[in-house]
Amino acid sequence: MRFKTLINHPADWIIGAGAQHPVVITSRIRLARNLRQFSFPGWATKQERIELLDLVQPSLENLSVMKEAFSQSMNQLSALQKQVLVERHLISREQAARGEGSAAVISRDQSVSIMVNEEDHLRIQSIVSGFHLHEAHQKIADLDQELEEILPFAFDREWGYLTACPTNLGTGMRASVMLHLPGLVLSQQIGQALNAASHLRLAVRGLYGEGTESLANLFQISNQSTLGESEETIIESLERFIKQVVDAEMSARERLLKEELPLVLDHVGRAYGILTHAHVLSSKEALSHLSMLRFAADLDFLPETAKSICDALLMKIQPAHLQMQTDDELDPSQRDHIRAEIVRAQLQSLGSPVKDNGDRSSNDPFLI
Amino acid sequence: MRFKTLINHPADWIIGAGAQHPVVITSRIRLARNLRQFSFPGWATKQERIELLDLVQPSLENLSVMKEAFSQSMNQLSALQKQVLVERHLISREQAARGEGSAAVISRDQSVSIMVNEEDHLRIQSIVSGFHLHEAHQKIADLDQELEEILPFAFDREWGYLTACPTNLGTGMRASVMLHLPGLVLSQQIGQALNAASHLRLAVRGLYGEGTESLANLFQISNQSTLGESEETIIESLERFIKQVVDAEMSARERLLKEELPLVLDHVGRAYGILTHAHVLSSKEALSHLSMLRFAADLDFLPETAKSICDALLMKIQPAHLQMQTDDELDPSQRDHIRAEIVRAQLQSLGSPVKDNGDRSSNDPFLI
Repeated sequence: MRFKTLINHPADWIIGAGAQHPVVITSRIRLARNLRQFSFPGWATKQERIELLDLVQPSLENLSVMKEAFSQSMNQLSALQKQVLVERHLISREQAARGEGSAAVISRDQSVSIMVNEEDHLRIQSIVSGFHLHEAHQKIADLDQELEEILPFAFDREWGYLTACPTNLGTGMRASVMLHLPGLVLSQQIGQALNAASHLRLAVRGLYGEGTESLANLFQISNQSTLGESEETIIESLERFIKQVVDAEMSARERLLKEELPLVLDHVGRAYGILTHAHVLSSKEALSHLSMLRFAADLDFLPETAKSICDALLMKIQPAHLQMQTDDELDPSQRDHIRAEIVRAQLQSLGSPVKDNGDRSSNDPFLI
Repeated sequence: MRFKTLINHPADWIIGAGAQHPVVITSRIRLARNLRQFSFPGWATKQERIELLDLVQPSLENLSVMKEAFSQSMNQLSALQKQVLVERHLISREQAARGEGSAAVISRDQSVSIMVNEEDHLRIQSIVSGFHLHEAHQKIADLDQELEEILPFAFDREWGYLTACPTNLGTGMRASVMLHLPGLVLSQQIGQALNAASHLRLAVRGLYGEGTESLANLFQISNQSTLGESEETIIESLERFIKQVVDAEMSARERLLKEELPLVLDHVGRAYGILTHAHVLSSKEALSHLSMLRFAADLDFLPETAKSICDALLMKIQPAHLQMQTDDELDPSQRDHIRAEIVRAQLQSLGSPVKDNGDRSSNDPFLI
């Protein structure tokens, strides 16, 4: 599959049915796996990394899930293409910095992606829309088994799967969900709600994982511990906590609607007003307003289609996606203009009236 | 005339033909006059002030321009009513703080207002829309002559009209214009453009005169000198400078449209988007966005009616006017909700499409 084909196809986890969950955007599982008798990528010479890649790439491409997959060595991709894959959460920022000897193998529907020679020999990820950790885990467990039959994984009876970094030792598994929590943020309860995560050895991160800030009321929560517990136990513990956060978010939304309706209307109204009328829009500002529109759709202030339009835009308006779309190297100021144009155009199609109000049509002299 | 009648009638200088000037909102002349053999108000006893008021009020009410005028002593007005008159520029903040012995006599069309026992015995103001200083001056000169025939003004052949404060001595005249300068502010040339004012002994002030900040790109420019020059010379010198500022503003707008169109569209678009969708709106924020809409109307981005709607709103949304309209004592947070409601409702009527774009109709799910 060519890069263009991959990019023009919206990821399954964006358009999938699970995308309709009001809080959990995606569920993700990744496994770290290494091959016996090969140095970890950080210790291996370039030649050794190339040898390992040559060995595993055909096996990965032959996996049933990888039919017509996208499979490229990092040095075959431009900086912009790599950045697009990062924005889609298909490779890590670390992998994007690598070249020959490292690769990405990505399934056609983008629900499974495998990085070769990132921190470990293999980083296998399964991502599904909505709150479906078990489904994501089942998918990746099947794949893991399929691979285990053909590749000699480094496994120790006492320690489990061996990994480059001890924090991944054992299951080698990281389960994570991306949560949209505008209710908790607006009612200033977010700190309290996520506070318990650290006691449960769960990590809270921003939109792009470790060390990134929270944007657009999006929070990534994942397990920190990989040792001494089974995959199932880890997932169930994460799932229990996420259920609590989802409940807290839903209560916060209910309370906001009951007690602070003008505040909510003001936030979502302004977001809509700005997105449909701005002509200069930074990525950060657009994300934050789109978050409010998604919230508005959840609250039935906008037609149901608004949610998928927002989710698609959240992806499209990011810097590399924007440049890829326009086939142009754009400087940040040009990007801000084109981003505003794309957002205005897309949100125009939201024009159908809301159920509880018969006539909302109007002539807006600025809607162009 | 009752207070309600006064307030429900929009001031002539808001709806007058001159309101269509792209830069000069109003031209204003005020005269300071005092009566011989009466102490200045600041030195007079309360009894003396009441005596003077009793003497002059009937004469003022009998002026031809004051037919069916509003004529009230300050102690007959509530704090809210006084604040409304301040917001309309019909009395000063200083006069609003006064009680028995001070009064306001205001013509039905609000183009002439006289304060009795403010800093001077009489402060006579004429205000017209647009750039018409001579017209405003002619009006007030006629009135001055009419009064001079019935009231013994304190006048010295060498010094001219005697006033409580030496800065008004001589002509006793202050001529001022209110300018809307979004082009110079947006292109960051405002400091440079107004810099020359001080060399010409002109004062630059904010929306409510001395000591107030500039809001909504509105600047008040007036003469500082009253001594040693004729009224005509003072007005002509002010007029010359204002013409320069108007030219600078028009060039700035032209350059912005040519070189920075997306910036302009972004500013006016956001202002429109926020005003038509916000549910909580402070007076300051509303003023600043309305300034951008007035700018948009000047640039033909909005139908011509937009300008008078904006000018009327600039008045209506101020705190005291808002409370007067709703017949309620409102706390600031309630005011912010009602202000947003009024602005949304008024701007809905702006709905006709712009000339250069055939189809701008749309269904905006948030326009309620």
